[in-house]
Amino acid sequence: MRVVLAAGTTETATIDGISAAGASPELMTHTPAMDAEILIYGEPVSSDLVPVSPTGCPTPAVITRAVREQVGFDVTVIDAGLAAETDAPTVAVGAKPGRDIRKEHGVPSARATFDRARAFGRSLPDDELFVGETIPGGTTTAAALLRALGTALGVSSSLPENPLALKEQVVSAALDASAIAPGEMADSPVAAIDAVGDPVQATVAGLTVGALESGTEVTLAGGTQLVATAALVRAFGIEKSLSLATTSFVAADPAVDLDAARATLSLDVTVTDPGFERSEHVAMARYVAGEAKEGVAMGGALALAAQGGVSPEAVRAQIATVHDRLAPPSKVAGDDTEGER
Amino acid sequence: MRVVLAAGTTETATIDGISAAGASPELMTHTPAMDAEILIYGEPVSSDLVPVSPTGCPTPAVITRAVREQVGFDVTVIDAGLAAETDAPTVAVGAKPGRDIRKEHGVPSARATFDRARAFGRSLPDDELFVGETIPGGTTTAAALLRALGTALGVSSSLPENPLALKEQVVSAALDASAIAPGEMADSPVAAIDAVGDPVQATVAGLTVGALESGTEVTLAGGTQLVATAALVRAFGIEKSLSLATTSFVAADPAVDLDAARATLSLDVTVTDPGFERSEHVAMARYVAGEAKEGVAMGGALALAAQGGVSPEAVRAQIATVHDRLAPPSKVAGDDTEGER
Repeated sequence: MRVVLAAGTTETATIDGISAAGASPELMTHTPAMDAEILIYGEPVSSDLVPVSPTGCPTPAVITRAVREQVGFDVTVIDAGLAAETDAPTVAVGAKPGRDIRKEHGVPSARATFDRARAFGRSLPDDELFVGETIPGGTTTAAALLRALGTALGVSSSLPENPLALKEQVVSAALDASAIAPGEMADSPVAAIDAVGDPVQATVAGLTVGALESGTEVTLAGGTQLVATAALVRAFGIEKSLSLATTSFVAADPAVDLDAARATLSLDVTVTDPGFERSEHVAMARYVAGEAKEGVAMGGALALAAQGGVSPEAVRAQIATVHDRLAPPSKVAGDDTEGER
Repeated sequence: MRVVLAAGTTETATIDGISAAGASPELMTHTPAMDAEILIYGEPVSSDLVPVSPTGCPTPAVITRAVREQVGFDVTVIDAGLAAETDAPTVAVGAKPGRDIRKEHGVPSARATFDRARAFGRSLPDDELFVGETIPGGTTTAAALLRALGTALGVSSSLPENPLALKEQVVSAALDASAIAPGEMADSPVAAIDAVGDPVQATVAGLTVGALESGTEVTLAGGTQLVATAALVRAFGIEKSLSLATTSFVAADPAVDLDAARATLSLDVTVTDPGFERSEHVAMARYVAGEAKEGVAMGGALALAAQGGVSPEAVRAQIATVHDRLAPPSKVAGDDTEGER
């Protein structure tokens, strides 16, 4: 089993108020790079920056890493537009950091990145892939993409209170900036990413299309950002079966309708509940309070743990272990990752 | 357990006759990139080029991958000066392809690469690392480096007949080109790489120094190229224990004196014999005939298999399996990798 993580950034995440309060754009820039290092090495390597929210909710990378230490899956990270250096090994697909979609096209290199990721997905020898993401601001670009494609599905948030009104303003401004009417890009998915999307969408969509074309089974491991990617794959004309594995936290979000996603996009949906309410550890308590919800392939990792016969109790114990060996709180940086990251 | 593979190139490998006959510099350029993909994915991904010698001896990457499929160690590839694109995920240390040491300094960026690899080695959380290499032409630059350091140890070859006279010519020309007397760089190991070395040496030496400084145990997984790197580490003033794990094929090479390396450089040396003479499979027969001998961390992988309780019989069976699923012979490209790669 291979888990592929598309790690990237978009300047859309720097819009004031769209991300959790209190952290700087500078720190947010590092989140995907640190997530990749945690997943690969078990802790940040090139810096001491452990991505957490202002209230102490740790990055979902901790959960995915904890499952990896129990299940042992391979991880491959794709540089899907990182803006900071990372010591994690990355596959290059020519992605660059995304731009602020209110002001200009979000991903001018979307076609090239999509094509290269598609070729990579076609050539991978694996029978099955799980594909996850880490990109601050990703649910806002997901909302804009869904609007451009004309897919009437809502998006989640890493915040307990989803800033839906602000996201709506950004989505409207983005469609205006690219002179797109809602639904106008229904048959032009790559152009839709170019206009109002982010580089992680181009990477995940290309990878997924290529993998499905070559007979590889794909599970999109994440929440509504990956629902948006599924919409891209369908808009591209791929009708093969496609799965989504996400968390009970996303399923419980009132802004999210997984049944509608299942029906609209013909998705096999798996929801896994890690039972975090049975733990009082800080690494899990903030999730119960409605933060984070998903990201860094967390929902997919939890599904793999369940498939592998690892009990939720064992998963929770390992999450605490991984969390506690990370940098001490004094070194912990704020994380204003938005949406499901 | 993490195996780190430093994958790079040097134009020194393109010297006529220093590499196995019959393959083009163009194909040789791809060998480290394909070795990395075989180790990560189980087969080449970005091309159909399976590195083999003109007689059909497959790259040692096949052996290391086969052991990985049985033992399950993590692999991290460092771009130590790749000249071709790869779809393997790589860590960046700023390395560039090495130059022809007869004509100019081999690695003008040696200091920057060494420093960055050293920081990476210091920050890795692993208790133990195995470090391997893939670089065509590597034993020739190893010979030049040992001469510059004044370490009287010989080098091996991937060819049944080691082109020692030609290597000697290249070494002399290299020292002349950089105006260095034998032994003159004994106290300037990084400057020695800069002058007559290759970018894999800068990467492996920096990584090893940093890892040892932070208390990580390091096993150099390879033959005389890694003996040369051990000489660098000692010249840098690091006295901590350091291991070398290589193959019986290197140990049997008359040009190699592992006892002298052990004594001179204070190395713990492990030699593993995979018993290839008990197989008639092409993947192993050419090794018995004296080809390849080592590379891509092969000796370290065989040691890990032995430590993990995997029998030589099981290793040989998996080598045949990995080899036979690679591209068919019609797609196989010549490999003129020199030395132990």
